[in-house]
Amino acid sequence: MEFYCSKNDLVNSVNIVSKAVPSKTTMTILECILISVSNGKIHLMTNDTEHGIDTELKGDIKENGVVAIEAKRFSDVVRRMPGDIIHIKSDDNYLVYISCEKAKFTISGKSGDDFPNLDDVERKDFITISQFTLREVIIQTIFSIAPNDNNKIMTGELFDIKGNKLRVISLDGHRISIRNIELRQDYPSRKVIIPGKTLNELSKILSGEIEKVVNIYFTDFNAVFEFDNTVLITRLIEGEFFDVDRMISNEYASKVKLNKKELIDCIDRATLLVRENDRKPVIITINNEEFKIEIKSPIGSLDESVNVEKEGDDIKIGFNPRFLLDALRVIDDDEINIYFMNSKAPCYIKDESGKYNYMVLPINFNTVG
Amino acid sequence: MEFYCSKNDLVNSVNIVSKAVPSKTTMTILECILISVSNGKIHLMTNDTEHGIDTELKGDIKENGVVAIEAKRFSDVVRRMPGDIIHIKSDDNYLVYISCEKAKFTISGKSGDDFPNLDDVERKDFITISQFTLREVIIQTIFSIAPNDNNKIMTGELFDIKGNKLRVISLDGHRISIRNIELRQDYPSRKVIIPGKTLNELSKILSGEIEKVVNIYFTDFNAVFEFDNTVLITRLIEGEFFDVDRMISNEYASKVKLNKKELIDCIDRATLLVRENDRKPVIITINNEEFKIEIKSPIGSLDESVNVEKEGDDIKIGFNPRFLLDALRVIDDDEINIYFMNSKAPCYIKDESGKYNYMVLPINFNTVG
Repeated sequence: MEFYCSKNDLVNSVNIVSKAVPSKTTMTILECILISVSNGKIHLMTNDTEHGIDTELKGDIKENGVVAIEAKRFSDVVRRMPGDIIHIKSDDNYLVYISCEKAKFTISGKSGDDFPNLDDVERKDFITISQFTLREVIIQTIFSIAPNDNNKIMTGELFDIKGNKLRVISLDGHRISIRNIELRQDYPSRKVIIPGKTLNELSKILSGEIEKVVNIYFTDFNAVFEFDNTVLITRLIEGEFFDVDRMISNEYASKVKLNKKELIDCIDRATLLVRENDRKPVIITINNEEFKIEIKSPIGSLDESVNVEKEGDDIKIGFNPRFLLDALRVIDDDEINIYFMNSKAPCYIKDESGKYNYMVLPINFNTVG
Repeated sequence: MEFYCSKNDLVNSVNIVSKAVPSKTTMTILECILISVSNGKIHLMTNDTEHGIDTELKGDIKENGVVAIEAKRFSDVVRRMPGDIIHIKSDDNYLVYISCEKAKFTISGKSGDDFPNLDDVERKDFITISQFTLREVIIQTIFSIAPNDNNKIMTGELFDIKGNKLRVISLDGHRISIRNIELRQDYPSRKVIIPGKTLNELSKILSGEIEKVVNIYFTDFNAVFEFDNTVLITRLIEGEFFDVDRMISNEYASKVKLNKKELIDCIDRATLLVRENDRKPVIITINNEEFKIEIKSPIGSLDESVNVEKEGDDIKIGFNPRFLLDALRVIDDDEINIYFMNSKAPCYIKDESGKYNYMVLPINFNTVG
């Protein structure tokens, strides 16, 4: 195998495929990037068994071939190369020669024979979405997936397509995040659960440009994200997602409108008094036009108020400050609305146009506080 | 105790004194900042038993008093306060009230009775140096102190004053770093060994401004650094420093002149092939006008050459790449000179005007490599 390519292109391609290199694995071949040159094309590939990435690299091909090279090392070497054009060559013993100007590296690679192939997925049924929108919607919902596998379905996000609407939902038993997106055309109805880990890595390699698009292909067991020169294939999580519409309510006893940044800063200060994993709630008391936030812990206490516009009843309710912050931080609006029913019912942070709805369950502050 | 002060001033003062809060201690009182208000002055103090810091804070005093408050927590709270003016008050139970606009914190403090006093050092015999120069000279030498206490003297730096010359020296058994500084006037001769840990923290709180000065007072057991509104007192390391002049030589068999950045980048690349704590040397081969750098490790090999101007003999010699990098990175000059004797003698990276001299011992590459 032998080719020349631009250093910047290579660094970029290696960054992309590195997102599917498992951090811990017993299969050492998966710690590698597979470089394969054939049919006039150079491909870089990685696979962490749940999702795999394949990206095409432009270059000047001298000889076909395949070699696997340890991803972290290759990435470090390539990034620190002195010049613009990198020359890569491997021999029959899988020694990889990487050179650029006067710097000549020789690194032991591996045969690519054991490298798992990416599933060969039929690409027929698909939706198109801008890279920017997909990246945003992942960031705006990914924080409320469940962190571990006790309930596999909660570790993924529902992508619910109906007509020209895409609804993305994540939930972890304490909160629900919902984002509604308008697609450019109508598509057949479909519900899939995509692993959160895949979405997280995907959000890091999407360019975030509005004009650039992603095609997402679906089969019964896989989704394929196709964008730029890159293809990411992931397994889907099997099963039925929760019926979120039965969990949320549009009724409320009080509604407050307030400045998002003021509220974030205030809750942020409150968290200074809470140790990690400590379930101390912030207690919100709405009394006429006063919106008071209190927290008490063995370390100390904070007492602060925020200006609000209020409709409806007074209320006193406790929340995990982290859950409120997670939702508030991904909302773009400067002014937000929070809807309360009573001290035992969830609150909803949502906009009037229905773009987002963040439900957070309260904590019983009488027993916990 | 009660006073008002500017948030920025307080954040700045807390940053300064936090540099003498021990990261691990069995004396919990030392994890605190002592705030003391008396004689129309507000002082913040910390002490890690090796060095202590006292800084004066401007403010509007309402009531005298003393309280100790956990440094990390106090620093977090103060930094996140919403407004410009902070109000601080403590009561007889050492509860500390910290408020700013609508945010009101209450945090448990401690009596200051157990807080160790800073040594009362007679400030008579001193030198004056710009904050910029002191900060630079620390950064340019601190990397070659010995990291642990096997040889106490090696954990400090020699400050050797003679006439209007200050020579700062550190060494760790593998290398010696020497910096020579011209002072603005003559001072009596004096040699003191200042703990490296103190110098490290000091370099972080010196403003780095050329016009601002530090007065350094000396007694037999202490040094006092006085600058801005701050006083840092440190114990000195007792004992006689190494006779460095007997360890270094001005003779050489070959001298090369080369571009510092090219050499740094090249050695940097070589370190990609070395695991932490692996004693693999980079091997430098000077052959006519060619200056070749090679490294071989189980991971792979690098072979690269750098343009040089050479005087004298050809040579082949091995070094710990980290030691060369540490010295090269703190040299300001773009072009540097390296002097070699033979493959078993140290090399010297030094300038012709005698501002700096970095000695690095070679590694025997035949046995180790």
